[in-house]
Amino acid sequence: MKIAIAIYDNFTALDAIGPYEVLSHLPGAETVFVGREKRPFRTDTKACAIVADASFDEVDRADVVIVPGGPDMQAIATDATLIAWLRKVHPTTQWTTSVCTGALALAGAGILAGVEAVTHWAAMDMLAQLGAKPVKERVVMRGKIVTAAGVSAGIDMALTLAAKISGEKFARAMQLAIEYDPQPPFDSGNAQTASPELVALVLQLMTGAAAPSA
Amino acid sequence: MKIAIAIYDNFTALDAIGPYEVLSHLPGAETVFVGREKRPFRTDTKACAIVADASFDEVDRADVVIVPGGPDMQAIATDATLIAWLRKVHPTTQWTTSVCTGALALAGAGILAGVEAVTHWAAMDMLAQLGAKPVKERVVMRGKIVTAAGVSAGIDMALTLAAKISGEKFARAMQLAIEYDPQPPFDSGNAQTASPELVALVLQLMTGAAAPSA
Repeated sequence: MKIAIAIYDNFTALDAIGPYEVLSHLPGAETVFVGREKRPFRTDTKACAIVADASFDEVDRADVVIVPGGPDMQAIATDATLIAWLRKVHPTTQWTTSVCTGALALAGAGILAGVEAVTHWAAMDMLAQLGAKPVKERVVMRGKIVTAAGVSAGIDMALTLAAKISGEKFARAMQLAIEYDPQPPFDSGNAQTASPELVALVLQLMTGAAAPSA
Repeated sequence: MKIAIAIYDNFTALDAIGPYEVLSHLPGAETVFVGREKRPFRTDTKACAIVADASFDEVDRADVVIVPGGPDMQAIATDATLIAWLRKVHPTTQWTTSVCTGALALAGAGILAGVEAVTHWAAMDMLAQLGAKPVKERVVMRGKIVTAAGVSAGIDMALTLAAKISGEKFARAMQLAIEYDPQPPFDSGNAQTASPELVALVLQLMTGAAAPSA
């Protein structure tokens, strides 16, 4: 089973690495990071670079495609090289997936036209403008298209997908292997229940406006 | 604030990227991936490579050190280059941290002698043999030494640490930014409550013995 993870300049590392850590261990998985060129791609913080071992030109098919997101929403939705690749490989997949604002690239490629999907909470309006039907769930599976909410939601998506691909027993084994027994110290991960003040602070941070006072 | 994430051949990507995704966004954070040489280091699956932008020789101090784990427990506990670097930088840190079997490197460096700490559930006995006092908690903070349980626990550790470093408001903002509202599809992430059969399967997988039937 060929798993292709598409990366590009300024992507968010955890969007890609969460699903990678679960799905690359599936029986028979052959995972490859793919980008417009075979080179390291630097993430949104500039402090991390992950290598694309294959170029888009070299990958004509995949059983699972994973598209991570990043903060440059307009750029992701209109990335011509990424979108052309998605249009090429999507017809070959068993599962076409995105994490966070990676859904904007799927939408830009026309893959989400009229399809229920989710993205980072701050990008839900844009997802609708691009023709998808936003659904406020953590993981949205519609046929072979699977979208996850922001960043860390890719782990939940991958476990859900692992059960579909390799069976629940194996998905549970992967959860135990990565000791995914989450115990966040706060309960602030959901935009629907977070305070308006906190939501405003995060939007300010995401647009790089200012650092907050602690 | 200088954050140094130590990487090496066959490390586990999510161990490093979980804390990275939270802590690299702290106000004033300067994050660097550091390894024995400045080059990409391939992870345990061989399918992912992350670039070390600095060598151990180049990094003499750090405010926060993060040591990810990997499956080669004996190699991690005796990695002379990594251990020498940890002995060099640990006296300069505000926080010395590990995720998963990264704790074995801290123990190998003598940093955990008599100190309560946690590691991946499958490595707790070895951690004790190396002189630490294993504690079955997800995040263990003892003075400036912070250890996290397996793989995904690094995210919980980083949020805990973010609150200590930058205040709870900022930690909550980071949780919302990465939409960390975990909803695992199964409840199989804790070795203390998992079935003996599942624990045996994961141990078999971790030693590469065989792929399971689904």
